[in-house]
Amino acid sequence: MRDGDKRHVPSVTVPRLALYLRKLRELRAGGVERVSSKDLAAMIDLNAAQIRKDFSYFGEFGTRGVGYAVPRLIAEITRSLGLDHTWNVIIVGAGLLGTALARYRGFAEQGFKLTGMFDSSATVIGADFGSGRVRPIEGLEEFCAETRVDIALVTVPVAEAQATVDRLVAAGVRAILNFAPVKVVAPKDVTVRPVDLSSELMFLSFCLAESAPEGESAP
Amino acid sequence: MRDGDKRHVPSVTVPRLALYLRKLRELRAGGVERVSSKDLAAMIDLNAAQIRKDFSYFGEFGTRGVGYAVPRLIAEITRSLGLDHTWNVIIVGAGLLGTALARYRGFAEQGFKLTGMFDSSATVIGADFGSGRVRPIEGLEEFCAETRVDIALVTVPVAEAQATVDRLVAAGVRAILNFAPVKVVAPKDVTVRPVDLSSELMFLSFCLAESAPEGESAP
Repeated sequence: MRDGDKRHVPSVTVPRLALYLRKLRELRAGGVERVSSKDLAAMIDLNAAQIRKDFSYFGEFGTRGVGYAVPRLIAEITRSLGLDHTWNVIIVGAGLLGTALARYRGFAEQGFKLTGMFDSSATVIGADFGSGRVRPIEGLEEFCAETRVDIALVTVPVAEAQATVDRLVAAGVRAILNFAPVKVVAPKDVTVRPVDLSSELMFLSFCLAESAPEGESAP
Repeated sequence: MRDGDKRHVPSVTVPRLALYLRKLRELRAGGVERVSSKDLAAMIDLNAAQIRKDFSYFGEFGTRGVGYAVPRLIAEITRSLGLDHTWNVIIVGAGLLGTALARYRGFAEQGFKLTGMFDSSATVIGADFGSGRVRPIEGLEEFCAETRVDIALVTVPVAEAQATVDRLVAAGVRAILNFAPVKVVAPKDVTVRPVDLSSELMFLSFCLAESAPEGESAP
């Protein structure tokens, strides 16, 4: 029954689930066993009714006046987010960003295991990336056939992004984080999420330009 | 008059403007002088009517059958996005991510000039970050008082994120990109955009877990 229910958690709740999980882990680390939706709402600046609605996807286990059991909430959210799995991750593009991501400890802590890194440039192939050596991009398909690859981080230049995504999709990868500042297309059964630093900076620039006094806004 | 019009570009169009700008620059580099909304729509997988609506914010200068003048479009979008300015950027947090961002050439190319980098750790203070040396966080307020700081990238640990944002706001910074995986609050006249890699990975994990066969989804 629970398995059936779990499938109905809508994807739009995922950013909030991630937020709850972080705060609940903090609470647990501080020895807190129960929390009310009202107190949690105050801690993370969200609406208590929204929180109760989100938690209702896990079944009715909050008790009025007593609150939710923190360990059970953590277990349910962890399960919903698929964080009870270890996911195998590869990085395609061993430039500055790819290398920094490879050495970012936050991923491993969440159950994301970096199993391979690929590049087309002879100058970086063979370089140590912290948990192995950079492989030539030519070996991507063979690697994906031999090892399960769940998630790929794409940190190649713009001009190579779509071709890289196409190769990953053909090799069976179903989840991609695209750091190249360009829109890429993929079949419906593949999830591609963009992480576009350049667009975020443009947004800030836009807001600054909009709020600048008239005299400063002329070129 | 144009200045008055320009102020009406809604912020929701900004991601599309960024997308148009990249494609138009590519076209210009390839010697293309005019483009129709229909051709542009096909190139970037958007709706032609949407593109015409977005471009109408810049005044009516598309001509039926002839299309839009590429250089003028580039100029208008550049201006709307505030990219006709040079923005001074600082990075607070000289860890792996902060250091990688400091060396990322894409920023400079877009008119974002890295003018300072700050950290609280004695082990990185004084280190070369590519265009200067890492300063002690204690000097943040003085630096902001002496130099105009438009944008701050916050790459500190979660526990320090809110306090860092508070200091930046007090020091007069009005645009912040927050890379710490925690929600931070700021006054309404300050723009804070989150770049949360950890939440993006959780989203991919969620999608993978949802689509996994029953047998594989049990812990």
